[in-house]
Amino acid sequence: MKTRALAGAFALTSLLCSGQAPGDGQPASSNIMGAEYPRVQADNRATFQLKAPDAQKVQVQVPGARYDMTKGQDGVWSVTTAPLVPGFHYYSLIVDGVAVNDPGSHTFYGTGKDSSGIEVPEKGVDYYSYKEVPHGDVRIRHYLSKTTGKWRRCFVYTPPDYDTNAKVRYPVLYLQHGMGEDETGWIFQGRANLILDNLIAARKAVPMIIVTDNGYASRPGQVTAPSGGAPGRGANPATAAFEEVITRDLIPMIDSTFRTIADREHRAMAGLSMGGNQTCQVTMRNLDKFAYIGAFSGTMNGLSTDPLDPTTAFNGMFEDGAALNKKIKLFWIGMGTQEPNPFPGAIGAFRAMLDKAGAHYVYFESPGTAHEWLTWRRDLNDFAPRLFR
Amino acid sequence: MKTRALAGAFALTSLLCSGQAPGDGQPASSNIMGAEYPRVQADNRATFQLKAPDAQKVQVQVPGARYDMTKGQDGVWSVTTAPLVPGFHYYSLIVDGVAVNDPGSHTFYGTGKDSSGIEVPEKGVDYYSYKEVPHGDVRIRHYLSKTTGKWRRCFVYTPPDYDTNAKVRYPVLYLQHGMGEDETGWIFQGRANLILDNLIAARKAVPMIIVTDNGYASRPGQVTAPSGGAPGRGANPATAAFEEVITRDLIPMIDSTFRTIADREHRAMAGLSMGGNQTCQVTMRNLDKFAYIGAFSGTMNGLSTDPLDPTTAFNGMFEDGAALNKKIKLFWIGMGTQEPNPFPGAIGAFRAMLDKAGAHYVYFESPGTAHEWLTWRRDLNDFAPRLFR
Repeated sequence: MKTRALAGAFALTSLLCSGQAPGDGQPASSNIMGAEYPRVQADNRATFQLKAPDAQKVQVQVPGARYDMTKGQDGVWSVTTAPLVPGFHYYSLIVDGVAVNDPGSHTFYGTGKDSSGIEVPEKGVDYYSYKEVPHGDVRIRHYLSKTTGKWRRCFVYTPPDYDTNAKVRYPVLYLQHGMGEDETGWIFQGRANLILDNLIAARKAVPMIIVTDNGYASRPGQVTAPSGGAPGRGANPATAAFEEVITRDLIPMIDSTFRTIADREHRAMAGLSMGGNQTCQVTMRNLDKFAYIGAFSGTMNGLSTDPLDPTTAFNGMFEDGAALNKKIKLFWIGMGTQEPNPFPGAIGAFRAMLDKAGAHYVYFESPGTAHEWLTWRRDLNDFAPRLFR
Repeated sequence: MKTRALAGAFALTSLLCSGQAPGDGQPASSNIMGAEYPRVQADNRATFQLKAPDAQKVQVQVPGARYDMTKGQDGVWSVTTAPLVPGFHYYSLIVDGVAVNDPGSHTFYGTGKDSSGIEVPEKGVDYYSYKEVPHGDVRIRHYLSKTTGKWRRCFVYTPPDYDTNAKVRYPVLYLQHGMGEDETGWIFQGRANLILDNLIAARKAVPMIIVTDNGYASRPGQVTAPSGGAPGRGANPATAAFEEVITRDLIPMIDSTFRTIADREHRAMAGLSMGGNQTCQVTMRNLDKFAYIGAFSGTMNGLSTDPLDPTTAFNGMFEDGAALNKKIKLFWIGMGTQEPNPFPGAIGAFRAMLDKAGAHYVYFESPGTAHEWLTWRRDLNDFAPRLFR
C-alpha cells in the first residue's frame, strides 16, 4: 500500500473521548455506534465525558440540574451525575458558555434543535423495548400541502402484517409531538412503533396505523419559525395552519394512500404538551372526523391555570357534557406526577371544567415523571389499548 | 393566564442567533425549522453564525478550509466563506478547540457522529429535488440478525405504486454508505429516494426497491466500534460480519417481506467509498446472488494504489475477464475529478487490472467534485438507469 493518507470524509472523529479504559456502567443505548460515553451506571447515575483541552469551563445540563465537569490531565472533562429518572432525556454540554451537542450521542429533534439525548434504562419494564414480536414499518412519507404550498413530511407506522393482509383496512391514530419537536419525536424519542408492536403482539391493542406529522404549519407568507410563546393560543402563526393541514391535506392523503377505515369511529388523535393542546382544538372543532381524543400533558387551555366555566370557556364548546359523552368515545387526559408549573394547574383547571359539565374522561398519572418522554410513553401504552373497541 | 413560566421541555433555544436582520442569501435547506443561519449566498458563499459571548475563539471547518469567525458586539461570531462546491457538505463549528455542531443545522450521521451539514444549491439541476411526481416511501425497518445477535435497522425505499400494484414484483438495489456513516446516509444526504422518484417518473429507470443497511456488523464478542483504519481490508472487526449479514440475514428478510424478484438478474449492489469496497467483496464472492455492481469512489483494493496483476490479485478472481463479462451484467465504477489521494490512484489501479483482464466496465467521472455526496448523487443518477434492462 503506497499511502494511508485518509481523505477528510474518511476520517472518524470523536468516536472515543480518549484511550483510557471505560468506567463502570454501560454506554447509553442512545449513543452513536462505538461511543463509550455517556455511560449509565447500575443506579442510573450518568457519566459524561468530553475532550476539550483548550476550553476554560465545561458543564453538562440534564433535566433539572447543571453539573460542572472536571478536567483531567489528558484534556478530557468528566462528571458523574446524581441518579437520573429512567426514560429519555434531552441534554447539552456547555463549552465556555455555549450549549452544544455531545459527539458521543445521537441527536433527537427537540428543544428546537437536533439535541443530544440519553436513554436511561427502566428496570423490569420492556413495553417499549425491541422484542421478538412481529414489527411494523415506519414509513417516511412526503406530501405537497395545498395549505402551506410546501412539501411536508410525516411518518406512518403500519402495523405488522399490513403488507400481507392486503384486504384488511385499519383505524388510524394521529399522534402529535410537543413544542420544539417534530414528526420524528414519537418514533425516535417516544418509540410509539415499539409500544404498538408490543401491545398488538400481546393482543392488548387492535392493529392500527399511526401517523405523526409536524405540528408547525403556516400559510404562504406567514412566519414559519416556531416561537417561544405559549403553545396553541391561536395567535401563533407558526402553528396557525395546522388544523387546516391535518383536516384538508393530511387526512385525505392518508385515507387515499393507505388501507384505512375512513370514518370518525376509526380515527383518533392524541398529542403531548403543545400537541395535546392542538389535539383538543382540532378534534373538538372536527367531531365529525374524530371519536377518540388523547391529551398528554397538554389541554385546550394551554398554559393557563385560570378557572374555566363550561358555559363560557371556548365558546361553550364543553357546556353540554351529556351530548359530548354520546359523541366522544374516549376523552383521555394524562400527566406525570412531577410535572412543573403550570401543567398541574392548567390540566387541573381543564379537568374541573369537564367535571362541572358532566363530561366523561379517563385520567391517568405517570408516577415519578415530569414533562418528559417517559410520561408520554406510559400515556400511549395506556391510551392505545382503549382505542377502536 | 396566571403564569407564563415555561418548563424546560417547552423552552426553545438557539433558534435564532440574534435579533438582527438576516443577511443576504437564503437559509440553507438543511437548516432546522426557522433557523436563519447558515445562509447560502447567490454565488455559493456561505455565512455562518454562532452566539458565544464567552468563547475565546470560534471557527468553522468546511471541506478543505477552516475559517476564523469574528466576534460582534452582541457576542455573535460570524464569517462568510469562499464559494462552496454545490451539494451536501459535512461541517463543524470549533469553539475553543472543540468541534461541535451548529445549532442551526440539522444533523446527518457522518464522520463518525451526528454532524452538521449544509446543502448548497446546484443551479439548473433538479434530479435530486422534490418535484410534483409520484413519490415512493422510505420505510424504517428493524430485523434481528442471526449473525450479530442484535437488532439491526435498514431503510427500504419502495417505488411509487408499490402499494397499489399489489401483484407486481420488483428488482432490488442494495446501496451502501461510506466509513463513519450508516443506513441513513443514502436517504438524508444522498437523496436516493428522490433521485429514483424522478428517474422513474421520467421513465429513465425501471421501478425498483432500494435497501440501505448499516455496513458495520460484528459477531458477538467482536469489537463493534468503527475504526479509523483502512476500509474493508478484511482485518477490521467492525465490518467483518457484514458479508454474512447481507447474504444470510438481510437478503432473505427482504425477499420474504417485500415483493421482490429474488434472483441474481434482479439484484444489484452498489456502495460509496468503504461501501464500494464492500460491494466489490460481497458481489464478487456471491455472483450467484448479484448481476449488477456499482463501485462509487471505492474499489476492491481499498486505499492501496499498488499495481494489481489480475492473475494474482484477489486470488485471481478477476483473471478471466471473458467469463466475468458473461456473468456480470454491469460493472460500474465512478469517482469525482477532484477526489484527493489515494482515491484516483487506487481506483486507477483497479481499472488498470480490469483492463488487463479484458473485463468490461463503465467508467463515470463527476466533474468538479471530490470525495463527497454530490459525486455519489451523480453516480446513482447515472448508475440506476442502467439496471435491470
